[in-house]
Amino acid sequence: MYNPSKPYKAKIFELIKKTWNTPLIEVKKDIYPVFKEKISGWKVDHTDGIGTKGDYHWSQKTFKNAVLDALAMNLNDLALVRAIPYKLQNHIILPEDNHKYILEIVEHLSKECQKRHIVMTGGETSIHNNITSLDISMTVSGFIKDLKQNMCKVGDVLIGIRSNGLHSNGFTKVRELFGNENREEFTRPTHIYLDEVLNVCDKFNVNGMMHITGGSFTKLKDITGNVDIKIYRDKPHKIFYEIYNKGVTDKEMYTIFNCGIGFILSVPNDSKKDVINNLTDAFEIGEVVKGKGNIIIESSFSENTITL
Amino acid sequence: MYNPSKPYKAKIFELIKKTWNTPLIEVKKDIYPVFKEKISGWKVDHTDGIGTKGDYHWSQKTFKNAVLDALAMNLNDLALVRAIPYKLQNHIILPEDNHKYILEIVEHLSKECQKRHIVMTGGETSIHNNITSLDISMTVSGFIKDLKQNMCKVGDVLIGIRSNGLHSNGFTKVRELFGNENREEFTRPTHIYLDEVLNVCDKFNVNGMMHITGGSFTKLKDITGNVDIKIYRDKPHKIFYEIYNKGVTDKEMYTIFNCGIGFILSVPNDSKKDVINNLTDAFEIGEVVKGKGNIIIESSFSENTITL
Repeated sequence: MYNPSKPYKAKIFELIKKTWNTPLIEVKKDIYPVFKEKISGWKVDHTDGIGTKGDYHWSQKTFKNAVLDALAMNLNDLALVRAIPYKLQNHIILPEDNHKYILEIVEHLSKECQKRHIVMTGGETSIHNNITSLDISMTVSGFIKDLKQNMCKVGDVLIGIRSNGLHSNGFTKVRELFGNENREEFTRPTHIYLDEVLNVCDKFNVNGMMHITGGSFTKLKDITGNVDIKIYRDKPHKIFYEIYNKGVTDKEMYTIFNCGIGFILSVPNDSKKDVINNLTDAFEIGEVVKGKGNIIIESSFSENTITL
Repeated sequence: MYNPSKPYKAKIFELIKKTWNTPLIEVKKDIYPVFKEKISGWKVDHTDGIGTKGDYHWSQKTFKNAVLDALAMNLNDLALVRAIPYKLQNHIILPEDNHKYILEIVEHLSKECQKRHIVMTGGETSIHNNITSLDISMTVSGFIKDLKQNMCKVGDVLIGIRSNGLHSNGFTKVRELFGNENREEFTRPTHIYLDEVLNVCDKFNVNGMMHITGGSFTKLKDITGNVDIKIYRDKPHKIFYEIYNKGVTDKEMYTIFNCGIGFILSVPNDSKKDVINNLTDAFEIGEVVKGKGNIIIESSFSENTITL
């Protein structure tokens, strides 16, 4: 916990305190920050971190991108329950006790939280000299304005939103394939879809949604029930072809990587145009048909069709 | 997040669901668990983990003790703001994708949460093949029945509660001193003081409290303000003498290790007997005098007196 007993902890505390100015939650400093929430109704808590992508962020010291990745991992998942994030606790693990780095990370997080009116209620920084990379994880709390089942329906059109590249999943495989090579693509931050997704959910009819991250397209099984999903052939970023050409199978590609699609929305045919027009870089990527919960994908990397 | 899309995730979900039976919070399964809290007033969130003690828990597969350590790190800190824990999110990091181990950890956590009426609202399990040890951390939410300043007063008596040994701090030093040696003492769980501490706070006048963990006796500076604290010579567990005799200085001992005291309460002299009688293995360990925020300790390992 960040109590200001040491000079650098006092600085952390000041950065955290900058996020406390929101009408949804009253915060004051006890030995820890304590708070009163002015929110009722359904809420959700969500925990996620940057995983082994932290290896690249640590070696390149791309701390701002690491913070954006950690936020994206949580906020894009909150979108699935249409939740608006309002507070968080962070957990930073560093391989060395470097106050400059810790302050830089917390400052980036504080700025992002200020922009989004997310209150930082505290967190933890641990130094683990048995690891060689950075980890940033967080527990984000969100409130749900409108609790609605997240489920695809037969006849829905699937809208995909373009990913920003690899995002934050598949990095164990990336490290296996690329070794110590460092590329800009390996530290580029995950796109945060939350705002535009909540905006279209407010305005139009959306039946199902999925953030394409760890587990990749297999995650769609959570929202298929007893329908099948068909995904059309696409033209993802160059990096995915490069990975495929290193000997990764079609099936592995779609169970490990986002293959160019960061977020999927399943919408009735008559909402299709409106949803696409209100999202950035979104397009029709498939359809929902009668079935048994299969995900049928035309591989973008070959003539194959795979079933998950 | 634990959505039951894979067989072992469905088992994790069942274990989490067993904790949902409490009057304080209504939980239901959406794509994630969502909840309504039936609590108003001041709350606190707290994040902490087991740190590098995870090395020993992983090599000995002492998962139950690891879970108790992670809980203790959070619950003992919650005691400082007199908070009652009611929900948590866990974050488990494992070096290998072993479902048996993950289920064993979540089952232990579920059982402890059931005992304590703490709702598990979800969490995350990450596999990091770039680490060699287990980490269990969690974000615990508590509600505060009675918000009271945590501050020592001149004239207070300091009551210490015996620790269970090393607890969960100082393990970077332990690993440096003992290398790969494994001892029962290195995986013994941290004592959880929350319940008995909240009980004495309810009944008697307690001015200040501190959980003696990472940072050890320096943490007392958070509750001294402009008074001095004097700690008397004590007779801690054998392991602390053994560590001292490996060449650790008196000052290092009291800034790294709990030296036999896991929790300290600062109480008015007239509450002393009642507080001691209502705690297990508690005794007078010092006093609060006029001063400038110094922590003055008679070393248990030598004739020295050190000032932090």
